[in-house]
Amino acid sequence: MSATAATAALPGIEQIRDAAARIAPHARVTPVLRSAALDALVGAELHFKCENLQRGGAFKFRGACNAVWALTEAQAARGVVTHSSGNHGTALALAAATRGIAAHVVVPDGAVQAKVEAIERAGAIVHRCAPTQAAREQAAGELQRITGALLVHPYADTRVMAGQGTIALELLRQAAGLDALITPVGGGGLASGVAIAAHAIEPALTLFGAEPQGADDAAQSLARGVRVTTVVPDTLCDGLRALVGESNLDALRRHRVELVTVSDAEAIAAMQWLWSELKLLVEVSSATVLAALLQQPERFAGRRIGVVLTGGNVDLHNLPWQDAG
Amino acid sequence: MSATAATAALPGIEQIRDAAARIAPHARVTPVLRSAALDALVGAELHFKCENLQRGGAFKFRGACNAVWALTEAQAARGVVTHSSGNHGTALALAAATRGIAAHVVVPDGAVQAKVEAIERAGAIVHRCAPTQAAREQAAGELQRITGALLVHPYADTRVMAGQGTIALELLRQAAGLDALITPVGGGGLASGVAIAAHAIEPALTLFGAEPQGADDAAQSLARGVRVTTVVPDTLCDGLRALVGESNLDALRRHRVELVTVSDAEAIAAMQWLWSELKLLVEVSSATVLAALLQQPERFAGRRIGVVLTGGNVDLHNLPWQDAG
Repeated sequence: MSATAATAALPGIEQIRDAAARIAPHARVTPVLRSAALDALVGAELHFKCENLQRGGAFKFRGACNAVWALTEAQAARGVVTHSSGNHGTALALAAATRGIAAHVVVPDGAVQAKVEAIERAGAIVHRCAPTQAAREQAAGELQRITGALLVHPYADTRVMAGQGTIALELLRQAAGLDALITPVGGGGLASGVAIAAHAIEPALTLFGAEPQGADDAAQSLARGVRVTTVVPDTLCDGLRALVGESNLDALRRHRVELVTVSDAEAIAAMQWLWSELKLLVEVSSATVLAALLQQPERFAGRRIGVVLTGGNVDLHNLPWQDAG
Repeated sequence: MSATAATAALPGIEQIRDAAARIAPHARVTPVLRSAALDALVGAELHFKCENLQRGGAFKFRGACNAVWALTEAQAARGVVTHSSGNHGTALALAAATRGIAAHVVVPDGAVQAKVEAIERAGAIVHRCAPTQAAREQAAGELQRITGALLVHPYADTRVMAGQGTIALELLRQAAGLDALITPVGGGGLASGVAIAAHAIEPALTLFGAEPQGADDAAQSLARGVRVTTVVPDTLCDGLRALVGESNLDALRRHRVELVTVSDAEAIAAMQWLWSELKLLVEVSSATVLAALLQQPERFAGRRIGVVLTGGNVDLHNLPWQDAG
């Protein structure tokens, strides 16, 4: 697997079920919460799957944990490596710790200090590099050669997609009779895993994805029928800046995932609704899903919708509405 | 029952079990969350009972709901009345709405506008009065005479204490083998209801209460053996400014509840830990429980402790650490 190509075989439902069994001793079964106020606001029945309450504060632990525990003993002994400035780095470090193996995380200069500290606190060996995609991949490649550690890509990885897909298995068990699901879309690891799992269980489900207008490469790619790689991300939604992976995009296409793009201002407003009504810390990337529902209420009216809240890692001293009003 | 005397018969375990059945169709079974980071910080095994995720954003809904549904048809038809500038007013309005009856809430001038709006949004008829205890009780008394509505006192009320006690029934079912419980102490409705329920099920449990240093009348009362009513509250913990009720104090004494007083600065620091590690909005009054654990870790070391998080109603544009650093 090459990080540049960002391709990997899509998992099947059996691999997702295997992932659920593999991560069960380590991951949390996160609660599904309701809010009468938010239901009234959207005009739909919303079931919020709270992955911000997952270990490490984000769904990323599922995929990382599945990847780590799918390794053979010999592979595991050499550790794992990734490049990340965010939740995937923390997740991989936490997952590696559950198996007692080393995690190397390449962090680009200029990454948010709070997130780097979280990666270190989770037990990773942090390696700095220049803030370019090429430098990140080169540093990760070098670490692989030196240590023999295997790369765990944040989204273009079959086991990672399978791990993220376990969210849909849980959610469809916790909330019966859903008509639709919506997740944020960044690299597409979550959206692809959830799409595969959800349609295997309930083929009639309508699937939606929310993407920031400032990083709408997946929406452009689906619209044009070809993967658009020229988008330069410009959004506050730091968890959704990655370009969608090739195989991830393929899954979105096969499963007819409908994308809704939202502005940063819409995401910030939705974030405040989630905080004040659900009493949950939800990061701005994660609030894009409610922003999408609020932007097009007529599209979602009367439906029973599973809404995946992906993460809650925020800087409490720098909340976006302190600037944005 | 007189609000001034603040006395009411203590409920027994059967009344608490009745309350659980009565509120079950309306109240949420709130989740119990864990955090490895907070366990490590305190050196104990903490089981957080998340009543900030209760309807209305606070445990108060339980007591109000039990009181409303315990009324006869004839009583209910006349509505309910209380005086409150905070969560109890919202809770009573929400509870009244579940039975389709009127709720009158007397709100003192100068109350936080956001909380008054929440009380109105919940459907209450709001009546303003001067910001003194005498004016509040006079206004509530007058409304009772005019409308025939029954008073639902926020803590000196048997049915309210029974409703709050249902938290302990749930928590002890959700988290097996606890050694101790801790709740905040304001008027004492929660602490007394929880003490009665908890000791009926598990007599060996050690019970703790957390109180702000600036409203430590319950701690002073237990220390002196007589109810101290001269404390003038001076604390950011707006949910804990009430003087402990006579019967509530009696319950604390009988059940040997050990009080820990914490400073506002300690509560604010604990609030930040709860936000960043549990990803939950918790109000400063509610954070006193973690502040107590952090202040005296040797006292709690190695124990399995149920920690009741009471509410999450905060002003997102005025967080206490924005001033306090």
